[in-house]
Amino acid sequence: MDLTKKIREVENFPKEGINFKDITTLLKDKEAFKYMVDQLAEQLFDLDIDIVVGPESRGFLVGAPVAYKIGAGFVPVRKPGKLPAEFIRHEYELEYGTDALEIHKDAIQPGQRVAILDDLLATGGTMLATAKLIEALGGEVVSMNFLIELAFLNGRDVLKNYNSKALITYE
Amino acid sequence: MDLTKKIREVENFPKEGINFKDITTLLKDKEAFKYMVDQLAEQLFDLDIDIVVGPESRGFLVGAPVAYKIGAGFVPVRKPGKLPAEFIRHEYELEYGTDALEIHKDAIQPGQRVAILDDLLATGGTMLATAKLIEALGGEVVSMNFLIELAFLNGRDVLKNYNSKALITYE
Repeated sequence: MDLTKKIREVENFPKEGINFKDITTLLKDKEAFKYMVDQLAEQLFDLDIDIVVGPESRGFLVGAPVAYKIGAGFVPVRKPGKLPAEFIRHEYELEYGTDALEIHKDAIQPGQRVAILDDLLATGGTMLATAKLIEALGGEVVSMNFLIELAFLNGRDVLKNYNSKALITYE
Repeated sequence: MDLTKKIREVENFPKEGINFKDITTLLKDKEAFKYMVDQLAEQLFDLDIDIVVGPESRGFLVGAPVAYKIGAGFVPVRKPGKLPAEFIRHEYELEYGTDALEIHKDAIQPGQRVAILDDLLATGGTMLATAKLIEALGGEVVSMNFLIELAFLNGRDVLKNYNSKALITYE
């Protein structure tokens, strides 16, 4: 199945000049959704993954069903203010200003094998911050798996120390 | 499996006096996560569901894997400003002020059979707004399924025209 045909491109969202990849057209299509989950799970079956981590909130849509499929637990990484229990925070730089992500302190046990899943690899900033949070808790980031990679933004350079794969690549 | 034992209660979150049900301790536990998804899916297998709808963002965590399990598509209902394509909006009243939810106009086809999934039924406001959005697009809300119901908030009264079930009920 060619998943690129299931993705809608929306020009100038969320701001002028950005050609947004809208995955809602894929998710609502039951065959395409199943195919996406199965293909991502296929990349992980041999890796003995304990935990799938997904960053808020499209990472939830991709990561939770893949975690279910491979028999792993799921851990959300969230924007500040959302997690109710004790957490750690990682701040990272954006083009203008900074952003931050949080994870519960008890979300990962030392030595657990972790896969990070998200819908999109762009500049890699969110992914790197997520990996730092997992590593701060003693987890091992075994794999990063994306539905889409925007290769022209060179996120893979930022993530060069990690094993990363995407189902769809826009050059 | 007694899922109540997997849920962490956090006092005074997100504000004073609220005893928050933290499901992250359940989600990270692979057996409990699988059991939750399987039990929710079990309630839906006979209902010929085309689309699972989950409201942002914990509805994604529960709804997406259940959609995968039952072979349905998944449609997110989101807070304003998140959906990139043409959408409809439903505003609803909170204790103070109003809130709004949005769904893409092409998310549901008329006549499609829809289940709404979320982690928690509280006052029912989010659920009712979600149902109104689906019905405005011509979808049929066949079922509402929750991990947790806070029965003392009487959300079921608000949803009396719908078929709703929860895996865990706090009286």
